[in-house]
Amino acid sequence: MRNIAFNQAGDRVVILDQTRLPGCVTYLELGTAEEIYDAIRRLKVRGAPAIGICAAFGMYVLSLSMPRESYEEFSKEFARVKEYIGSSRPTAVNLGWALQRMERIVSEHPGAPVSEICVKLKEEALEIQQEDMDMCRRISEYGLSLIKNGDGILTHCNAGPLATSRYGTALGPLFLGKERGMEFKVFADETRPLLQGARLTSYELEQGGIDVTLICDNMASMVMKNGWVQACFVGCDRVAANGDTANKIGTSGVAILADYYHIPFYVLGPSSTIDLNCPTGADIPIELRPPEEIKEQFYEQPMALAKTKCYNPAFDVTDHSLITAIVTDQGIFRAPYTESLVGITQI
Amino acid sequence: MRNIAFNQAGDRVVILDQTRLPGCVTYLELGTAEEIYDAIRRLKVRGAPAIGICAAFGMYVLSLSMPRESYEEFSKEFARVKEYIGSSRPTAVNLGWALQRMERIVSEHPGAPVSEICVKLKEEALEIQQEDMDMCRRISEYGLSLIKNGDGILTHCNAGPLATSRYGTALGPLFLGKERGMEFKVFADETRPLLQGARLTSYELEQGGIDVTLICDNMASMVMKNGWVQACFVGCDRVAANGDTANKIGTSGVAILADYYHIPFYVLGPSSTIDLNCPTGADIPIELRPPEEIKEQFYEQPMALAKTKCYNPAFDVTDHSLITAIVTDQGIFRAPYTESLVGITQI
Repeated sequence: MRNIAFNQAGDRVVILDQTRLPGCVTYLELGTAEEIYDAIRRLKVRGAPAIGICAAFGMYVLSLSMPRESYEEFSKEFARVKEYIGSSRPTAVNLGWALQRMERIVSEHPGAPVSEICVKLKEEALEIQQEDMDMCRRISEYGLSLIKNGDGILTHCNAGPLATSRYGTALGPLFLGKERGMEFKVFADETRPLLQGARLTSYELEQGGIDVTLICDNMASMVMKNGWVQACFVGCDRVAANGDTANKIGTSGVAILADYYHIPFYVLGPSSTIDLNCPTGADIPIELRPPEEIKEQFYEQPMALAKTKCYNPAFDVTDHSLITAIVTDQGIFRAPYTESLVGITQI
Repeated sequence: MRNIAFNQAGDRVVILDQTRLPGCVTYLELGTAEEIYDAIRRLKVRGAPAIGICAAFGMYVLSLSMPRESYEEFSKEFARVKEYIGSSRPTAVNLGWALQRMERIVSEHPGAPVSEICVKLKEEALEIQQEDMDMCRRISEYGLSLIKNGDGILTHCNAGPLATSRYGTALGPLFLGKERGMEFKVFADETRPLLQGARLTSYELEQGGIDVTLICDNMASMVMKNGWVQACFVGCDRVAANGDTANKIGTSGVAILADYYHIPFYVLGPSSTIDLNCPTGADIPIELRPPEEIKEQFYEQPMALAKTKCYNPAFDVTDHSLITAIVTDQGIFRAPYTESLVGITQI
């Protein structure tokens, strides 16, 4: 089954709870705005494209219980709920982008019966998911053209099927290559603090029969020095117009190491992740998350004193100068990004 | 009390169990070769200088129950036990160095009564500890000359009092500066997989009243980019004659980031850590540790599938070209290291 879907009655969003993998495969039904907000906020669903899809599915489900008497009341409530869901996580652009697409359905049908609008909202949500599948497939094709059979690939965090709809972005070329009989040696950074690389990436690749070795984030330098890595593939949460890329914390460090060891560093993501309204990385809001994620969770006992301060940014920005190419469903974009990325068309 | 000492009867080594910090302050009494081997192997005592001191204390304690009838039998047994203890961890040079010093006491007194040799072994072990305290103090003075009041300092793993005798190496300048009324802002990499930075460094600095912020290893790039770091201070397990430095896994990555952000990167350690018999970093043996350290320990549940492969090197080698200076008890050494380090005198 897909990682994001509607339930049989069509009035709830069903998601695979990513916080419980790889130990438990558990599906959650989300029916209220609070449940959807919480699922995104607490990373039960994560990965920029998957967050967008979940938010779109959620807005449809929530629209079913909004005031149906007048278009005005409905659209006002829709806008309010959209704001609330949109505030769950600040960095990934896809969340706001998907919510915007859903709201456009409402604003483009002024005065229409709410029941008609709801039908169109469902179509739009499914369309966003289908488009993501198509985009991931195209990203995978473009990405695969950059590597060859037997290559070692280092990846950070998780940008596979779980983070998207199918194939994934950064992992897409590996799954597509595998379908075509190619073999890769993947090194997965565990990705502290929430260990998406260990829990999700190594899990997905194992399931797909792709050779994967899990490492701690601080081992990437040694793996590269050993000559085991021919390319780095990472996803992205928001790409600014100049190519600066926000992605999971630690990505910029991987890019600096790759630069030092002369290894190409590729960012892969759907064109919806390119935010041409955002001039540079300095304009991307970076989410700070609670210290407990570092100190207390995912550990058998508190690993630092309760009073110990922590700095816990969820993302960092990789400077465009460190990025060999940005791989999207619309092709492979290279520096100067201020010139190449303006060629992107967005829905 | 000191982190390594003899018990009151003088026939056991007492160590602070570093694997149980910061939650529990527990002392262990070690009386057999297996207990001493195990304490080093399992990191109950860790940090290159502390391992050397523990091994020296241990050899004395073990010498008390070796055959006392003839010098030949005693020295043969001493050599056998020394080999065994020396095999507990391969990377830190101080372990072999301290064991060598202890064996020299035996070999320099051929035919002497074993009881006399044992007295001298105890003196030598205490001398090694006292020298380390003096060396740490001198390292701290030299290190302090490289930074100024208010500086931000990033450190990796733990090279404080727990890893040595007193003051520490990389943390020594901070404790010494604090005694003199200076303030620093320290960023402590948590240091996966065994979290020495979280469990020991942030604990020691908190205890010493020094401002510390704990970060995950992959956050160092962002902290540096934010302009919060004026210098990196790290310890070392073995320095080759050309300046290549083996230290906790992840150190080379920190050095590459510091180089990229134009931040000075200092290695601090006692002169016993400089191994002039080791031409380059390629000649330093790197310990590989079990995958369970990554996947299963320090985590509430297995965070990857049982079949998932892990690569778990305990150390990496930082290229000499990335090191601004090597700070020892004999002064501050700078490139070209092949020329400067030969000036080191070793005991």
